[in-house]
Amino acid sequence: MCTSRIIALLTDFDISDGYIGAMKGVILSINPNAVVVDLAHNIRKFDIRYAAFIFLSTYKYFPKGSIFVGVVDPGVGTQREGIILKTKNYYFVGPNNGLFSLVAKDDGIDVVIELKNKEFFLEMVSSTFHGRDIFAPVAAHISLGIPLDKFGPRLSLSKFVTIDIAEPKIEKNNYIGEVIAIDSFGNVITNIPGDVLINEKVGTVFLLKKGEEEYALRYVRTYGEADHLESIILVGSHNYVELAVSMGSGAERFKLRPGDRIRLEKLG
Amino acid sequence: MCTSRIIALLTDFDISDGYIGAMKGVILSINPNAVVVDLAHNIRKFDIRYAAFIFLSTYKYFPKGSIFVGVVDPGVGTQREGIILKTKNYYFVGPNNGLFSLVAKDDGIDVVIELKNKEFFLEMVSSTFHGRDIFAPVAAHISLGIPLDKFGPRLSLSKFVTIDIAEPKIEKNNYIGEVIAIDSFGNVITNIPGDVLINEKVGTVFLLKKGEEEYALRYVRTYGEADHLESIILVGSHNYVELAVSMGSGAERFKLRPGDRIRLEKLG
Amino acid sequence: MCTSRIIALLTDFDISDGYIGAMKGVILSINPNAVVVDLAHNIRKFDIRYAAFIFLSTYKYFPKGSIFVGVVDPGVGTQREGIILKTKNYYFVGPNNGLFSLVAKDDGIDVVIELKNKEFFLEMVSSTFHGRDIFAPVAAHISLGIPLDKFGPRLSLSKFVTIDIAEPKIEKNNYIGEVIAIDSFGNVITNIPGDVLINEKVGTVFLLKKGEEEYALRYVRTYGEADHLESIILVGSHNYVELAVSMGSGAERFKLRPGDRIRLEKLG
Repeated sequence: MCTSRIIALLTDFDISDGYIGAMKGVILSINPNAVVVDLAHNIRKFDIRYAAFIFLSTYKYFPKGSIFVGVVDPGVGTQREGIILKTKNYYFVGPNNGLFSLVAKDDGIDVVIELKNKEFFLEMVSSTFHGRDIFAPVAAHISLGIPLDKFGPRLSLSKFVTIDIAEPKIEKNNYIGEVIAIDSFGNVITNIPGDVLINEKVGTVFLLKKGEEEYALRYVRTYGEADHLESIILVGSHNYVELAVSMGSGAERFKLRPGDRIRLEKLG
Repeated sequence: MCTSRIIALLTDFDISDGYIGAMKGVILSINPNAVVVDLAHNIRKFDIRYAAFIFLSTYKYFPKGSIFVGVVDPGVGTQREGIILKTKNYYFVGPNNGLFSLVAKDDGIDVVIELKNKEFFLEMVSSTFHGRDIFAPVAAHISLGIPLDKFGPRLSLSKFVTIDIAEPKIEKNNYIGEVIAIDSFGNVITNIPGDVLINEKVGTVFLLKKGEEEYALRYVRTYGEADHLESIILVGSHNYVELAVSMGSGAERFKLRPGDRIRLEKLG
Repeated sequence: MCTSRIIALLTDFDISDGYIGAMKGVILSINPNAVVVDLAHNIRKFDIRYAAFIFLSTYKYFPKGSIFVGVVDPGVGTQREGIILKTKNYYFVGPNNGLFSLVAKDDGIDVVIELKNKEFFLEMVSSTFHGRDIFAPVAAHISLGIPLDKFGPRLSLSKFVTIDIAEPKIEKNNYIGEVIAIDSFGNVITNIPGDVLINEKVGTVFLLKKGEEEYALRYVRTYGEADHLESIILVGSHNYVELAVSMGSGAERFKLRPGDRIRLEKLG
């Protein structure tokens, strides 16, 4: 596999901060031919789980050899390691805090390197912004073809921090799961795999239960099939079950937030 | 006209969603030399009219041959066609829902192709995200120089969906129109062409009438000529009449939203 | 120093406006090989001081010869000049309103050119959007290697508008300063140089006084060292003293906004 010159950034910074801009400057200073791509920014602050989920649902769309930098890093400056994760087909650079654990599971781990060699950092490393001072320059050096073992020693896989998307409970006509993410439309992405709906008949009604509250949702294949402002259940583009309101916000109507537990009961 | 390698994206996704990132990955996987440009994102969800207006007011600033992808697509997955619109000088890829009707009128239609050839789609096409699965890969293939007739049959022009910016009523000293868009400053962009003010004397006062409410607006050539927080009327950079508040929000003061009807009376 | 093909944009536009997209189109129309980088957008409208601060804290991370365009321009269309500032190592294009005065001081002024030669503007120059009609095309022409004296006459340095970050008052155990900026995390960036904390012992407590209100802040080296939601003081990545709340918003807790005066007293 060849290294790509594509470096894709995912951060919880806002475009108004200037932090993302500084990272781009660092990368282009080291490799003027790098192609820096904004993968996603301004995600919920410190929401490692959501960031991990976005990596999982987007990385395969990039050319093999692409380099991803993830900066959702509440532990910056503490003992947590900085790492390069090399999966079968891609590179990931960032903190060892679980950000890359879902892609590691999905694409397979080739090697994890602990970032120790300061030669590839900026000369001055702050204790609050390793995205700019360590991860961006390391990614740029990878894109130049520097062999991974130059960046530091291998990290034992037992030290590679993982988070999991909770395993949903799938029973006949009953699914118990949780909310992974809310997108900017207010669509509620759950941890229930889309496969459970694969043979479902359009029009089937599901009862969404959250605590004492209940909502009836109709199964459709796509948003546009629903009536205006109808509550619907469908398989989203991430291939997970989504709870939505046509032309409206599912998160608002169902009062759901990331991490909330939900239960779906099929009425038929 | 040569095909450009510039592919400009306009969506109603937010940068926090990861959806835009996935589209960029798809494009760069097919054409690693494509130059992907963010034209505009996070526009009002489902606001096809506003998206069409942004295309109209920006496309001419791009090099001829540029390829635009528009994803404001409430009908995704339903019967609405996916299309390539080739105008005299540019390519537009997206849903056939009116998104491209203003540029079609402005630049002239060369041909409209219905996207039928799955060879140029991703292998797995979801029913909820054609931006990633159909429009992005088609745009990337256009940038590689694939002839348009490979993508599918011609769409009869009678089937090309159009929306119009409502025709304003321009009478002596009286203009009746509507609000096309509000920008992030709160400037209110109307459908009244800037030409009506071309010979106006700076300082002329216009009465803005909206229902029972009236506001006096002074004509200026630019925001900076106005007093702090003064209500003003001017020709905006889109070359339409704008209603604004210097260093403040016109939309807030005049309580205007896209689609609202307004009436302007020149007092002199 | 060679001119770079990197053109970095900083504006107070939102990505939903289409204004940034239009500027990118203009640049790529003039120099198809330009690499357009989003440095920062959507910063507080008209906040020249904050924009100047972002330039100051990011420009050095870009390759020498990079061209920066700044559009925070409440005076657009009025008598204020458009300029190119050439510092020792970089180019800056935008309004002469102080946007570039901090980088000028930091990197040293080589020459300031007043933008007079319309040959390098768009054919139609609006009175409300010089970012698109003047600054973007001028930047693109610079990236093509056009000598600076072609763009217009030198601007006398006495006419170069400067703003300053107010000088803080540093006394033994007492620092009086002001808030320069709030980032999207709610971290409060002050004008007090980070050096004052360089030999500080972790755990030292500072009293933050703002009017009648007082808050106790513990000195840490990085956010992650603090307890959850603890009030902290640290040296931020801009190398200024920051007031923050671990995993929370310092701006909210301390009720601080840009420009606010603050006083810090070391308790030990």
